[in-house]
Amino acid sequence: MSIRIGIVGYGNLGRGVECAIAQNPDTELIAVFTRRSPETVKILSQNATVYHIDDIQNMIGKVDVMILCGGSATDLPHQTPAIAKFFSVVDSFDTHAKIPEHFSAVDAAAREGGNLAVISCGWDPGMFSINRLYAESILPDGKSYTFWGKGVSQGHSDAIRRIAGVVNAKQYTIPVQSALDAVRSGSNPDLTTREKHLRECFVVAEEGADLARIEREIVTMPNYFADYDTIVHFITAEEMARDHSGIPHGGFVIHAGKTGKDGEHTNIMEYNLKLDSNPEFTASVLVACARAAYRMKEEGTIGCKTILDIPPSYLSPASGEELRKRLL
Amino acid sequence: MSIRIGIVGYGNLGRGVECAIAQNPDTELIAVFTRRSPETVKILSQNATVYHIDDIQNMIGKVDVMILCGGSATDLPHQTPAIAKFFSVVDSFDTHAKIPEHFSAVDAAAREGGNLAVISCGWDPGMFSINRLYAESILPDGKSYTFWGKGVSQGHSDAIRRIAGVVNAKQYTIPVQSALDAVRSGSNPDLTTREKHLRECFVVAEEGADLARIEREIVTMPNYFADYDTIVHFITAEEMARDHSGIPHGGFVIHAGKTGKDGEHTNIMEYNLKLDSNPEFTASVLVACARAAYRMKEEGTIGCKTILDIPPSYLSPASGEELRKRLL
Repeated sequence: MSIRIGIVGYGNLGRGVECAIAQNPDTELIAVFTRRSPETVKILSQNATVYHIDDIQNMIGKVDVMILCGGSATDLPHQTPAIAKFFSVVDSFDTHAKIPEHFSAVDAAAREGGNLAVISCGWDPGMFSINRLYAESILPDGKSYTFWGKGVSQGHSDAIRRIAGVVNAKQYTIPVQSALDAVRSGSNPDLTTREKHLRECFVVAEEGADLARIEREIVTMPNYFADYDTIVHFITAEEMARDHSGIPHGGFVIHAGKTGKDGEHTNIMEYNLKLDSNPEFTASVLVACARAAYRMKEEGTIGCKTILDIPPSYLSPASGEELRKRLL
Repeated sequence: MSIRIGIVGYGNLGRGVECAIAQNPDTELIAVFTRRSPETVKILSQNATVYHIDDIQNMIGKVDVMILCGGSATDLPHQTPAIAKFFSVVDSFDTHAKIPEHFSAVDAAAREGGNLAVISCGWDPGMFSINRLYAESILPDGKSYTFWGKGVSQGHSDAIRRIAGVVNAKQYTIPVQSALDAVRSGSNPDLTTREKHLRECFVVAEEGADLARIEREIVTMPNYFADYDTIVHFITAEEMARDHSGIPHGGFVIHAGKTGKDGEHTNIMEYNLKLDSNPEFTASVLVACARAAYRMKEEGTIGCKTILDIPPSYLSPASGEELRKRLL
């Protein structure tokens, strides 16, 4: 029998989860839940039904795990605890500073409902967190660095779009190659924000807009751009559509640590991702975590977990015996 | 109270474990066990004692986890099950084809003794296995590649030393850059053994030895060299001592997988290691796994596990709360 999955929220991430479920024969999409009128939402899957999110409780006993695909800013802080009372859930909550608070709320709700929740699945938080953990646990006399990119930052793109005279914008976060090289050398350098990443912006402006003012407003914007070297390109709407319609991302976790009697040996551990589709990769992590959530719940585990608590083998459909034989 | 550790076997790996314990304040070295006369074995630690391995049972109740540092060919197949009857144990058994058999023997022994065993900890098997597992679980429509090196292969170095006229030898396994590039491009190429790695050998020959014959015997040696492009350098004993005394190693696990409605997006996951000291890094993984073994045993888990079964958080001395706050 396959793991019966519901998707809550059908944007880029929800569509990515739908595609990932199709790649995993032990999972099955039962339903998509939306705040829109269900009849206006067209999905790819033939055998799943679209329901209004208010009707989610009708599916108790018919869905094993709900994968929550809303945003971290306003959706997940209330949706994940609310739904964890009735279903096992998986989300990709990624507001790093608020994870402890979110964990507490989801843990209480999941325990109340006797369900299992896995929060903050994705790549950062997610696979990058796991790699930071393995690295510092194995080489405690060391230092971890995280670089993001090259990839699209939705938050920074949105910030540019709010400037007067801007029609559309896409911002790429780019790791600085010399900083990557310095970290990979094992020298554990101290790096400022500006030394680690640069920001490249592609902007479509209104006709006749003051481009110099727009550029100045971008590069001096506090929090978003002021602490970085920022490059601004003005392009046409056609160029934007042709060259910048994807949502690629990626990044690097690099840890250099010393071993030996006097720390005389340096060892470098590196994990990196190069993703054509940020939401589809995150969706793929969510589906693997849904499998783990289902198993842990079946074993009687309840409450909130993160990917740091999941034995790696629980993410795979293969048996322990097969994994030992084939992958170890 | 710290985790009380015993080391069984005091070669390169055992010495590495001793150094790693010194880097982990929640662990403590209690004793080293050896087949040699204990008084002939000098260790670095002031507060640990060297015993003969025949006296290991005297330490029941005084050591929490035994870290077995013998070889996979002849030591571990009998040592790990024998000692798992009396202690929780961790080993780095790395004969890939025999892992299922070793697992069964150790599982039975550990269950008999009510102990917890973790086998095959290190980097391959070990961290590379974990990365192959995460990769194929997240991106099932994909393919994983493992490359080893640049690093010293002990087995290949030993094989050269057995040739008549050879005084000393060191063999480096080197990934072929064009193969790495092809895999990183996401094209999932089919690669032959020869296309993936080359072998570089540094050989000290006896005075007057027939160098052409030695080179021919190396490059045509079945299993070890015949399927590879092999480079042979003859050097002096002084050059060997000066330039080739280290035991570096490393390698790459790269997985490219498709996502999207029609597999239209390619995503690359890469894990790589660059180790100045192969045995010290393996030792560092063993100590982190000893921590996990101790915890699992404390929770009442018994039998044999591998690193694929260990929740990542169990490898760290930090609390779940701290890990969520700091690393997630």
